[in-house]
Amino acid sequence: MSSQPRIAIDAMGGDEGVRVMMAGVALARHRHDGLRFTLFGDETRIKAALDNHPNLRAASDVVHADTVVDGADKPSVAIRKKSSSMSMAIAAVKSGQAGAAVSAGNTGALMAMAKLALRTMPGIDRPALAALLPTLGDNDVVMLDLGANTECDARNLVQFAVMGAAYARIAFDLERPRVRLLNIGTEDLKGTDEIRDAAAILRAAHALPMSFDGFIEGDKISRGDTDVIVCDGFSGNVALKTIEGTARFVTDVLRKAFTSSIRSKIGFLISKPAMHLLKHHLDPNNHNGAVFLGLNGVVVKSHGSADAKGIANAVHVAARLLEEDITRRIAADMAAVQALTASSKLEQPVK
Amino acid sequence: MSSQPRIAIDAMGGDEGVRVMMAGVALARHRHDGLRFTLFGDETRIKAALDNHPNLRAASDVVHADTVVDGADKPSVAIRKKSSSMSMAIAAVKSGQAGAAVSAGNTGALMAMAKLALRTMPGIDRPALAALLPTLGDNDVVMLDLGANTECDARNLVQFAVMGAAYARIAFDLERPRVRLLNIGTEDLKGTDEIRDAAAILRAAHALPMSFDGFIEGDKISRGDTDVIVCDGFSGNVALKTIEGTARFVTDVLRKAFTSSIRSKIGFLISKPAMHLLKHHLDPNNHNGAVFLGLNGVVVKSHGSADAKGIANAVHVAARLLEEDITRRIAADMAAVQALTASSKLEQPVK
Repeated sequence: MSSQPRIAIDAMGGDEGVRVMMAGVALARHRHDGLRFTLFGDETRIKAALDNHPNLRAASDVVHADTVVDGADKPSVAIRKKSSSMSMAIAAVKSGQAGAAVSAGNTGALMAMAKLALRTMPGIDRPALAALLPTLGDNDVVMLDLGANTECDARNLVQFAVMGAAYARIAFDLERPRVRLLNIGTEDLKGTDEIRDAAAILRAAHALPMSFDGFIEGDKISRGDTDVIVCDGFSGNVALKTIEGTARFVTDVLRKAFTSSIRSKIGFLISKPAMHLLKHHLDPNNHNGAVFLGLNGVVVKSHGSADAKGIANAVHVAARLLEEDITRRIAADMAAVQALTASSKLEQPVK
Repeated sequence: MSSQPRIAIDAMGGDEGVRVMMAGVALARHRHDGLRFTLFGDETRIKAALDNHPNLRAASDVVHADTVVDGADKPSVAIRKKSSSMSMAIAAVKSGQAGAAVSAGNTGALMAMAKLALRTMPGIDRPALAALLPTLGDNDVVMLDLGANTECDARNLVQFAVMGAAYARIAFDLERPRVRLLNIGTEDLKGTDEIRDAAAILRAAHALPMSFDGFIEGDKISRGDTDVIVCDGFSGNVALKTIEGTARFVTDVLRKAFTSSIRSKIGFLISKPAMHLLKHHLDPNNHNGAVFLGLNGVVVKSHGSADAKGIANAVHVAARLLEEDITRRIAADMAAVQALTASSKLEQPVK
């Protein structure tokens, strides 16, 4: 990697187009002075968009990409589009030109490309998709895996815990993040064999820079007393989407309620700051940027529909993980896990 | 079973005590004129509570039970308490004295007792826990399994679909409920082998009284365009609890917002009817009563903390399922499934 940290941007992936993408990157640029960018995509459109953002233009190289990965492309099709903006952004991380890549394109395609090009880090069997979710506490919570791995064994879950804790240490500036495994009860005998085995390993791993606090149930995800929640990709995806759906459900009920009578309408107008705060808490743009952890390089997925602020958040996530060298931290922690458990069941793939 | 439908009530299970339990049953009694009850528990306390409810007293027999299943009792301990109010209520269903049992006690104990005493119906391998969840649509949605089975194969999921559809036909008065499998995407190749195999079987089962509509993701659970959502007990429990937690999160954020400024406080007072409607939508008492489906008899679990209205709801659920003979309906549908798939993989346990 060059001396200055550099992020590769897939300029074409977002639903809102190149201009919004560039506006988002320009916003992020203000928070990260030393960052440089390589912008992949339609050169003409990128350069036109940069006219509004001289600050970003000064920190960027533009590289033309002939094609685009479509939202409907199957991963198997997408990975063959070598001259797509997404593919080229990932390739820049692979070659070491950039330390991180950000894309708002097709998630399955991005995951497949990133895995194929960057490979998993030593000690990590499978990458995981992690994101920050809002809580009532002082900081967000890191949750992973959110859908990269439908089924996971104990070994995968332990690795996710290590990766999530490394993320939480950077994102929340904590020394020993509190880590829990998602389960359907908090008693030791609850859940699957995989979850119980992972808990046994994590309970014994005192030397790791985390505090393993046992199990957590779905109703406590947003409570703010846990920094990292670890789960398989199926239940993580169900939980993530259920949070989104329920938040929308509650606000829809409220909206209906507020428009059901004149009295409520007046109340609503007067309470607008309150609704604004709620919107702020629930706005996915404020939590935009899911990270593929466990690869040789940082890859961040922005929501396709993110606005400039959302994209800036995704770039910020990539910048922080790059600046704080999350890959090296995870490698060091995995070495510690392996030393600790050299003779334990973590060494053999747990059934 | 005697000619008049009868429900066995575990009078001791609720956190709020015998009085609240009796108040709830009395409320339900008003909606179901022909119902009779057998009330199991501390005879003195039950009879004292009945003094306030002559209407219920007239329709009830009281049977003294010496002991109580404790919230902390492990299922293995609880099932040995043969003279507990919970055990005796289940035994009344087993002997045919009652057609259904309702308890607000220890869920694990109730499930273990019900399975042991009542056994699964012919054609059903495992019972499932089902509940009604609120939606933005015209009716609630039946969701199952909510935690009785941590891991499920395709055969289990198909059986849950049949049982859930039978419940939805009764609860929503529908001929062909719309059924979906919970998954992490809607494309055919998403999810686990078990889910895809179950989908293949359900897609082929045209003769069943349901319309199988494919997959549903977590963010659509509350949308109201599906009548039955089928899943394994792990992801169902995660989804159910995540809904609870998120609803609480959103209302907590709102409460904070509404008390953060005088302007908001005034707005809140004026908007009280709106908040009331929200509370009504989210109040677990309005959706109280989870059913163990697939047993030879109806068993309904009330939330431990349910108030009288919540208990009345749970009793109402039991009464409806008993009056509409859900057990017979499920048996008929399972026979249809077995005839349809006599030569298919549903016959052999799917891996």
